[in-house]
Amino acid sequence: MAIKIGILGYGNLARGVEAAIKQNNDLQLEAVFTRRDPSAIQIQTAGVSVYSIDDAVKFKDRIDVMIMAGGSATDLPKQTPEFAQYFNVVDSFDTHAHIPEHFHNTDLQSKKANKISIISIGWDPGVFSLMRMISSAVLPEGNHYTFWGKGVSQGHSDAIRRIDGVLDARQYTVPSEESLNKARAGKNIEFTARQMHTRECYVVVKENADKVLIEKQIKEMPDYFADYDTTVHFISQQELNEKHSGLPHGGFVLRTGVTGNHKEYNNVIEYSLKLDSNPAFTGSVLVAYARAAYRLNKEGQSGCKTIFDIAPAYLSSLSEEELRSHLL
Amino acid sequence: MAIKIGILGYGNLARGVEAAIKQNNDLQLEAVFTRRDPSAIQIQTAGVSVYSIDDAVKFKDRIDVMIMAGGSATDLPKQTPEFAQYFNVVDSFDTHAHIPEHFHNTDLQSKKANKISIISIGWDPGVFSLMRMISSAVLPEGNHYTFWGKGVSQGHSDAIRRIDGVLDARQYTVPSEESLNKARAGKNIEFTARQMHTRECYVVVKENADKVLIEKQIKEMPDYFADYDTTVHFISQQELNEKHSGLPHGGFVLRTGVTGNHKEYNNVIEYSLKLDSNPAFTGSVLVAYARAAYRLNKEGQSGCKTIFDIAPAYLSSLSEEELRSHLL
Repeated sequence: MAIKIGILGYGNLARGVEAAIKQNNDLQLEAVFTRRDPSAIQIQTAGVSVYSIDDAVKFKDRIDVMIMAGGSATDLPKQTPEFAQYFNVVDSFDTHAHIPEHFHNTDLQSKKANKISIISIGWDPGVFSLMRMISSAVLPEGNHYTFWGKGVSQGHSDAIRRIDGVLDARQYTVPSEESLNKARAGKNIEFTARQMHTRECYVVVKENADKVLIEKQIKEMPDYFADYDTTVHFISQQELNEKHSGLPHGGFVLRTGVTGNHKEYNNVIEYSLKLDSNPAFTGSVLVAYARAAYRLNKEGQSGCKTIFDIAPAYLSSLSEEELRSHLL
Repeated sequence: MAIKIGILGYGNLARGVEAAIKQNNDLQLEAVFTRRDPSAIQIQTAGVSVYSIDDAVKFKDRIDVMIMAGGSATDLPKQTPEFAQYFNVVDSFDTHAHIPEHFHNTDLQSKKANKISIISIGWDPGVFSLMRMISSAVLPEGNHYTFWGKGVSQGHSDAIRRIDGVLDARQYTVPSEESLNKARAGKNIEFTARQMHTRECYVVVKENADKVLIEKQIKEMPDYFADYDTTVHFISQQELNEKHSGLPHGGFVLRTGVTGNHKEYNNVIEYSLKLDSNPAFTGSVLVAYARAAYRLNKEGQSGCKTIFDIAPAYLSSLSEEELRSHLL
């Protein structure tokens, strides 16, 4: 019998989760929950209904794992602990600084409910975290570097859109090839933010907007752009729609470290992702960890877990024997 | 208190393990065991003694984890199940076809002894297996490719040395850059052995040896060379010692797969290793999994595990809180 999945929210990430469920025969979408009017939402899975978030708790015995598809800024800090009272839950909470607090709040509710929660799943935090952790354990004397891109940063795109006179914008984070190669060369380097990434902005403005001022406002925006070499291209809405409507992303995690009795050997571990769609890939990772959440809870486990706490075999639909025979 | 490690065997891999132990403050080398005369062996760790393998069982209460540093052909199939009767054990058994049998034999003994065994640890099988497995779970509709090298294959070097007239030899396995790039492009390709790797041989022969015949014997050797484009360079022993005495290795695991509601998005996951010393890196992986074996057994678990069965947090000397704060 298939594992029954619920999705809370129906934005880009939820659609990625929905598509990923279809690629896994042992998983089945049971329901989607929204804060909007359910009748206004058309999903991509035949025979599955959309319900109000207020009705979600009624599904507590019909859904094996609830995938939380809200945003990290305001949705997940409240929703994940709340729904952990009733469901096994998996989320993609990505505000690194607040993970300990989010873990604590969710763990408390999952333990009370005898359910499993898995937080901060995706690619960063997510499989990138896993790479940082495993490679640090294997090469304890070394350095790790994370480069993001080339890809669309929705947070940076939103920041540009908030500037007066801007109609639409798309921001690409671009890793520095030169710094990537320096990191690969195994040198112990401290990079500045500016050395690791550049930022490319495609911006649509109102007629007669002051482009010089807008470009200056972008380039001087603290946190988002001031510490980076930023280029700004003003384009038409049509060009933005035609050439920049996707959400590609990716990046690189490197670990360099020494081994040998005299630390005489250099080693480089490199992991990279090239993703045509950030939310579709993140959804695929969430779905694999939803399988793990279900299995762990079936075994009687409860409480909050991160990607570090899950034995990889739980992610696969293959049996342990198949994994040993075919993938080991 | 440090986790006390024993090493069974004292070849290249054992020396890699010994060096790796020194890089981990929570681990301590307790003893080395050998089939040779212990007094003839000089190890690199002050204050630690070498004993006969026949005395190993006497150390069963002094050693937390025994790392099995023998070969996969004849040593490990016998030794790992045998020592699993007395110790938590970790090995690097790498004969892929015989892993299910080796797992079964070892599992039986570990369960009887209430100990943990972890088999087939290193980089392939090992972290490469982990990458194949996790990326297949995350991208279930796709292909994976494993390329090895550039690096020294000891099995192929040995095969050349067995040819009449050959004094010494070193064989490098070299991945095809062209095929690597095709795999990265995300095409669903079936490569032949010849398309994926070439083989470079550096060979020292006796004076007056028939080089033409030796080159022909190498290139036509079934399984080892006949299916590959092989180049043979005859060099002096001095040049071999100077330029080819290391044991570098590495390789690439790629997974390409589609996501999205119409499978419209391509994704490429790539993991690569560049290792100055194959045995030193393999030793580092074994040591991280020795830490895991100890912890799992302390928790009361027993039986045989593979890299798929171990939650990554067990590998790290950092606490769960530290991992969540710094690496997630």
